[in-house]
Amino acid sequence: MASKIRIGVLGASGYTGADLVRLAIAHPAMEVAVLTANTHAGKAMAEVFPHLGFVDLPKLATVEETDWGSVDAVFCGLPHGTTQEITHKVLTDHPSLKFIDMSADFRLVDTAMYKAVYGHEHMAPELQREAVYGLTEIYRDKIRKARLVACPGCYPTASLLAILPLVRRGEIDATDIVIDAKSGISGAGRGLKQNVLFAEAGEGLSPYSVGKHRHAPEMEQEVTKVVGRSVFINFTPHLVPMSRGDLCTIYVRLAKAESADELRQTLMERYRDEPFVKVAAEGVLPQTQNVRGSNYVQIGVFADRIPGRAILVSVSDNLVKGSAGQAIQNFNLMFGLDETMGLMQQPLFP
Amino acid sequence: MASKIRIGVLGASGYTGADLVRLAIAHPAMEVAVLTANTHAGKAMAEVFPHLGFVDLPKLATVEETDWGSVDAVFCGLPHGTTQEITHKVLTDHPSLKFIDMSADFRLVDTAMYKAVYGHEHMAPELQREAVYGLTEIYRDKIRKARLVACPGCYPTASLLAILPLVRRGEIDATDIVIDAKSGISGAGRGLKQNVLFAEAGEGLSPYSVGKHRHAPEMEQEVTKVVGRSVFINFTPHLVPMSRGDLCTIYVRLAKAESADELRQTLMERYRDEPFVKVAAEGVLPQTQNVRGSNYVQIGVFADRIPGRAILVSVSDNLVKGSAGQAIQNFNLMFGLDETMGLMQQPLFP
Amino acid sequence: MASKIRIGVLGASGYTGADLVRLAIAHPAMEVAVLTANTHAGKAMAEVFPHLGFVDLPKLATVEETDWGSVDAVFCGLPHGTTQEITHKVLTDHPSLKFIDMSADFRLVDTAMYKAVYGHEHMAPELQREAVYGLTEIYRDKIRKARLVACPGCYPTASLLAILPLVRRGEIDATDIVIDAKSGISGAGRGLKQNVLFAEAGEGLSPYSVGKHRHAPEMEQEVTKVVGRSVFINFTPHLVPMSRGDLCTIYVRLAKAESADELRQTLMERYRDEPFVKVAAEGVLPQTQNVRGSNYVQIGVFADRIPGRAILVSVSDNLVKGSAGQAIQNFNLMFGLDETMGLMQQPLFP
Amino acid sequence: MASKIRIGVLGASGYTGADLVRLAIAHPAMEVAVLTANTHAGKAMAEVFPHLGFVDLPKLATVEETDWGSVDAVFCGLPHGTTQEITHKVLTDHPSLKFIDMSADFRLVDTAMYKAVYGHEHMAPELQREAVYGLTEIYRDKIRKARLVACPGCYPTASLLAILPLVRRGEIDATDIVIDAKSGISGAGRGLKQNVLFAEAGEGLSPYSVGKHRHAPEMEQEVTKVVGRSVFINFTPHLVPMSRGDLCTIYVRLAKAESADELRQTLMERYRDEPFVKVAAEGVLPQTQNVRGSNYVQIGVFADRIPGRAILVSVSDNLVKGSAGQAIQNFNLMFGLDETMGLMQQPLFP
Repeated sequence: MASKIRIGVLGASGYTGADLVRLAIAHPAMEVAVLTANTHAGKAMAEVFPHLGFVDLPKLATVEETDWGSVDAVFCGLPHGTTQEITHKVLTDHPSLKFIDMSADFRLVDTAMYKAVYGHEHMAPELQREAVYGLTEIYRDKIRKARLVACPGCYPTASLLAILPLVRRGEIDATDIVIDAKSGISGAGRGLKQNVLFAEAGEGLSPYSVGKHRHAPEMEQEVTKVVGRSVFINFTPHLVPMSRGDLCTIYVRLAKAESADELRQTLMERYRDEPFVKVAAEGVLPQTQNVRGSNYVQIGVFADRIPGRAILVSVSDNLVKGSAGQAIQNFNLMFGLDETMGLMQQPLFP
Repeated sequence: MASKIRIGVLGASGYTGADLVRLAIAHPAMEVAVLTANTHAGKAMAEVFPHLGFVDLPKLATVEETDWGSVDAVFCGLPHGTTQEITHKVLTDHPSLKFIDMSADFRLVDTAMYKAVYGHEHMAPELQREAVYGLTEIYRDKIRKARLVACPGCYPTASLLAILPLVRRGEIDATDIVIDAKSGISGAGRGLKQNVLFAEAGEGLSPYSVGKHRHAPEMEQEVTKVVGRSVFINFTPHLVPMSRGDLCTIYVRLAKAESADELRQTLMERYRDEPFVKVAAEGVLPQTQNVRGSNYVQIGVFADRIPGRAILVSVSDNLVKGSAGQAIQNFNLMFGLDETMGLMQQPLFP
Repeated sequence: MASKIRIGVLGASGYTGADLVRLAIAHPAMEVAVLTANTHAGKAMAEVFPHLGFVDLPKLATVEETDWGSVDAVFCGLPHGTTQEITHKVLTDHPSLKFIDMSADFRLVDTAMYKAVYGHEHMAPELQREAVYGLTEIYRDKIRKARLVACPGCYPTASLLAILPLVRRGEIDATDIVIDAKSGISGAGRGLKQNVLFAEAGEGLSPYSVGKHRHAPEMEQEVTKVVGRSVFINFTPHLVPMSRGDLCTIYVRLAKAESADELRQTLMERYRDEPFVKVAAEGVLPQTQNVRGSNYVQIGVFADRIPGRAILVSVSDNLVKGSAGQAIQNFNLMFGLDETMGLMQQPLFP
Repeated sequence: MASKIRIGVLGASGYTGADLVRLAIAHPAMEVAVLTANTHAGKAMAEVFPHLGFVDLPKLATVEETDWGSVDAVFCGLPHGTTQEITHKVLTDHPSLKFIDMSADFRLVDTAMYKAVYGHEHMAPELQREAVYGLTEIYRDKIRKARLVACPGCYPTASLLAILPLVRRGEIDATDIVIDAKSGISGAGRGLKQNVLFAEAGEGLSPYSVGKHRHAPEMEQEVTKVVGRSVFINFTPHLVPMSRGDLCTIYVRLAKAESADELRQTLMERYRDEPFVKVAAEGVLPQTQNVRGSNYVQIGVFADRIPGRAILVSVSDNLVKGSAGQAIQNFNLMFGLDETMGLMQQPLFP
C-alpha cells in the first residue's frame, strides 16, 4: 500500500466526482485519501452516494480543513467558476502536486475568450496558461509532463476525436461542421433544477443552450489551432431521457477526401493503436449503449445521400471518457503508469 | 347516431391504428364501424390493446371479410408496401369512399422515385397520381376535395411545417438544410425487433438509417416543388428512449432573411391563424413533453452564434400530428367538418 | 358561456393542479377563472407548464389577491398542511362556494389521528368534521350534498375500491391485508428533491416511507368504518421510474369467500354500472399502461397458489382517478352534472 | 496465460451469457475460450452484443461443433428446459468438467415437483440429484466440492438471503411470508415478445405470473429444507421499466423475534464477514440503484406500524448476483480461487 498514489477529490458529492471514486477504487495504483464536499462535510460517502457505501472511503471534508500535502494528486469535480481560486491556492501551497481538473475552468486558453464565455475575469490566468488541454489522444506528450491538466468537456471529447484528424489533413471543410449533440441527464449535474426532475425530463426530449453552449468555443479553439484560422462550429445539445451517454452526430462537407470511406480510413489509421478510441466498421451504428460505463469512444462514418457530404457519429459515456475516465487516463500518463490502468472494464449492457 | 360518419381502420393492431381509434372514440362525428387486423382477426380490440378495452368497439376482422360498403371513410395504418393493392381494391369497389392513408404508399408523386426508395414498382400508380399529400396546413384546399389523402410521415410533418414557409419566401437557402431528427420508439412500430426491446433501447440513444432514411426523399419532393429545382436535404434520424415524440433540429443558412428573428416573424405570420401549429416566442425551447398526446406542432427559431445561420426546432407527437391526428384533421376537411373537431385535447404532462 | 361554472385552482403550479387544468379545459361546463400559485404569481401558465400554453388561461395570481367571490368552485392542489387555513378563510368569506380539496388535509376524520399522523393540530377542525371523503363510488350520495369534499390519496383510491366491497361482505379477512404499492414519480410532486432527479430515480426502484406512509391511516380509517373495529393495514409504497401510474398489489386471506373467483364476482357485481371502475376478466393482468391519462381504475383478482388466499391488483393514473379526475368526478356530482362529464377521454398508450 | 482457466459459455447471445462474458473478461484467472449460440453461430460476438466488441473474443459456435474437452468449466445461460440434455451429454463426455448452470433446470431437487412446475419429465434426473443449489452464502461448502452447480433465480437469491437466516432461527413465521418482487426488464430475457418492447413496457408497470411464478416452488424448497415441513410462500413478480435490478419487498410475521431491530441484528451477525451481502443500517433504504452492475445484495429491515410484523427489502442486480456474478462466485469456489476474484467492481450509478 505504501507505494500507492494518494489522491484527493474536490467535489466528491457530484456525479463526476463519484464516478472518479468508483474508478479509483478499482485502480491498482490509487488510494483515495481525501474527499471534499463542503455542503456535506462530515458525512460518510455512503450517505451522499449509497452505491459507494460498500467499501471503506474517507469521510467527506471541507476544502479548507484538508491537508493537501497529504496527497499526490488532486482531481477536481467542482462546478466551473469555483475551481480557479482553489486550484491556485492548492498549487501555490503544494507546487509539486499533480492537478487534474474536470471542470471547465482551465480549458480555454484565451483569457478574453474565457471572460466572454463565462462572464467574469479568470481568477488564475497564469495557471490558465500553464494548463494542458487533456484530450489524451491529441495531447498525450504534453500531458505526460503537465502539472495541471484541464480535461475537456464531454461533448468536445466525443466530437474532437472524430473531427480533428480529418480537419488536420484537410479532408473535411473546417468551416462547415454541424454538431448535433445529445446527452444523458447526468450531464446536467446533480444540482436541483426543475428541468432534470424525472417527471419533467422523462418521456421527453429537449434542446438547450441553443446557439450558445459553452462547449462550442472550446471546440472552436481546438479546430482553430489545427487549421490555423478562426472557425465557427455549429453546435446544439439536447437532453435525452437516459442517465448516461453522449452522442454527437456531425455533419461535414468533404474537402480533400472524396468519400465517407476515405474519412473512415483516415480515422482507422489514426486510432489503430489507441486503446479507447474505436472506429466502427462500415455499416456499424455507434450507440451510447455500446459504451456505457466504459472509457471507450466509438466513432462511425457514413456516406450521406448528398454528394460531397458525410456524417460522423461519435458516442461515449459522458461521465467516463467524457470526464472521470479521461481524467484517470491523464493521471496515468502524468504518473508514468500504463495509460489503460484501471480503465479496462467493459461496458455495462443492458 | 344515425348521422355519424362510419369509419373503418385498416391495421388496427398497430400503434398508428390504435391512436386513430383512441381519437375517433372522442370524435363527436365518428363512429368506429370496422377494425381490421388480419393476424388478430376474431379478437376483441381489448386483447390487442387493453387500454382500449373500456369502450365498445367492433371485433377485429380480416380485410377480406370486411364489407367496405358499410363505411364512409377508411383510415389505413398498415405498414408501407401492403397498402397499395388493398387501397386499389377498396376504392375500385367503392369509389365514393374517402380514403386517408397513414402509410408511406402514396406520398411520393414520382413512380420512379417510389421504386428507387421502396425497392419495387408501385402497384397502384393511378392512385399515386390521384393522392393528395396530406400536410394539412399546406394542402388544405386540395385535401378538402380529395378522395385519397396520403398523410406525411412524422418527420416530414414536423420538418416541412418549419421550413416550407421559409424556402417559399427565399429566406433560407434550400440547398443547405441539415435535419437532425429524433423520435420516440413507437415510431418504429409494434413489430418484434430486437433493437426496440426495452432492455436494448432503454438508457441509450441510436442513430438509424443514416444517410438513407425514406423520409428524406419525401421532404425533398416537397421542398423541390416549392423552389422549382431539385434539392437534397441532409437528414438523420435517431431513436430516443421515450415512447412518443418527434423532435427535429434543423440547421439552416440565411438567404434573404437577415436574422433568426426574421424567420420567426415569417413563421408567426404564416401560422397566426392555424389551430395546431404554434411558433414559440423568442427564447422558448420546444420540447416533446409540450405536445405529447396532442395534435400540436411547436416550432422555435434560434439565432446561431455563427453569423448567417439559424437553428429551428420543431416538435410533435409522432402518433398524433405525425400520424393519426393529422389523418383526422384531414378527415374533418374532407367531410366538411370543423377542422379541429375531436382534436383539441391538450397535451398530457407529465 | 354565461352558464359555465367558474372554477379556481389553488396551487396551479403543481402536477395535480396542472392536470386539473388540463381536464378542465376539455370539460364542457367548466370555465377556468382563477389560477393561484404564490411563488409564480404574475406569470402566464405557459411559463410554468409549457404544455398548457396553447390555450388561453388566466395568469397565475396569489391566494391573497384573488377574489374568491368570482368563482363557483375551488379545487385545491396545495401540499398538505397549507390548505387548512386557506380553506377556512375562503369558506368563511364565501360560504356558498363548493370546495374540492385534493390535498390530505381533510381526509382523516379523527383530529387526534390527524395530529398523530401529520404532526400538528388541525387548524380547521370544524371543517374537518364537515368534509366528505371523496371516494366517489363509495360516498356518492354524501358528495352530491357536500360543500367540502376531501379527495382520497392515489393509493387509497386504488386500494379501497378493490378491498372495501370485499371486507363489507366479510369475504376477506380485514385484519390480514398487505398492500404493496408502486407509484410513478409524479406522485412525489414537483418539488426539487434529489431522489426524484432523473439521474437518481431513473433505472432504479426505491421503497419509501416503509412502515410509516400517511396513506395507511387513511385506508385503515375507511376499512375500520366498514368492519366496525379498528384494523391495521400493511402498506409499503415504492417509487417506479415512470411519470404516471399507480399499482397496488394486495395480498388477502379469504374469509367467507371460498375462492378468488368469488371475490371477482363480488367486485364485478358491485361495479357493473360504474363508468370508471373496471374489473378485469379472469386472467387479464391490469397494468398502469392501460389507464394512463384516464379516470379508470382497473382491478384484477387472482388465485394464489396458497390455499385460502388471493391476490388483487388495482391500477389507476395517480394524477387522474388518483387526484384531479376524481376531483372533477366529485365536482360533477356536487353541481348536478353527468358524473362522467369531461372525463371520458380514453387512455394514452403507448 | 497458460495458467488461466478456460471457460465456455453456452447461450452467449442472451443477457445472462453476455454479462458472464463481461465479467469474465475482467477476471484475472479466466480465459473465454468458447462461446456458443446456435442461432448466431459463425458471427462475432460484436455482432450480437456490440458492447463486447472492443475486446478479442472467440466467434460464436454451435453446441454441436464445440470441443468441450478444450475447456475447464462451462457456464450455461440457455433458457430452461434446453439445458438438461446438453448438460448430460457434456458431462458424460467430459466428466471432469465443472458445470455452472444459470438456467432453472437443476434447481428443484424433487423430480415430481420439477414436472409439476415445468410441465415435462426431467431429462437428466441423476444430474438433478447431483446438482448443488448455488446460493453461495448458504451452500458454500457443498459448492466447493461440486461438479454441477445450479445457480438460483434472481428472485430466490435476493429473497432467500433475506429470510433463510431468520426462519432458521425461528425468528419469523415461515408460513406467513409475502414476497412482492419487482424486476428490471432484462429479467425477461432477450427473446422477442411484445410485452417487453420499449413502447409497451416503458412508462408502465405490470404484474406477471400472478400466483404461479416458477420461482415460488424454488423458494419454498429452500425454506422447507430449513424448517423441516412444507411451506408455501406468497410471491408475485412485477416488470418495472428499468433494464436491470431486482427488488423484493418481504412482509413477515415475527415469531421468536420481538422486533425488526432483532431481525436486523441477526442478519448483520450472519453476514458480517460476507463480501457481497450487506445489511443496511437502520433507516437506510435499499434501492436497486445502489447495486447496479455489481455482485452486492443489500438488505434492509424495517419495523411495520402493525405490531408483530416487519418488512424486509432486498435488492440485487438480476444479471450479476442474480445470475452471472453469483455463477462466477461459485466458479471461484469450485476452483479454489478467492471467492471475490473478478467481482469487486463497484456499482454503476447514475
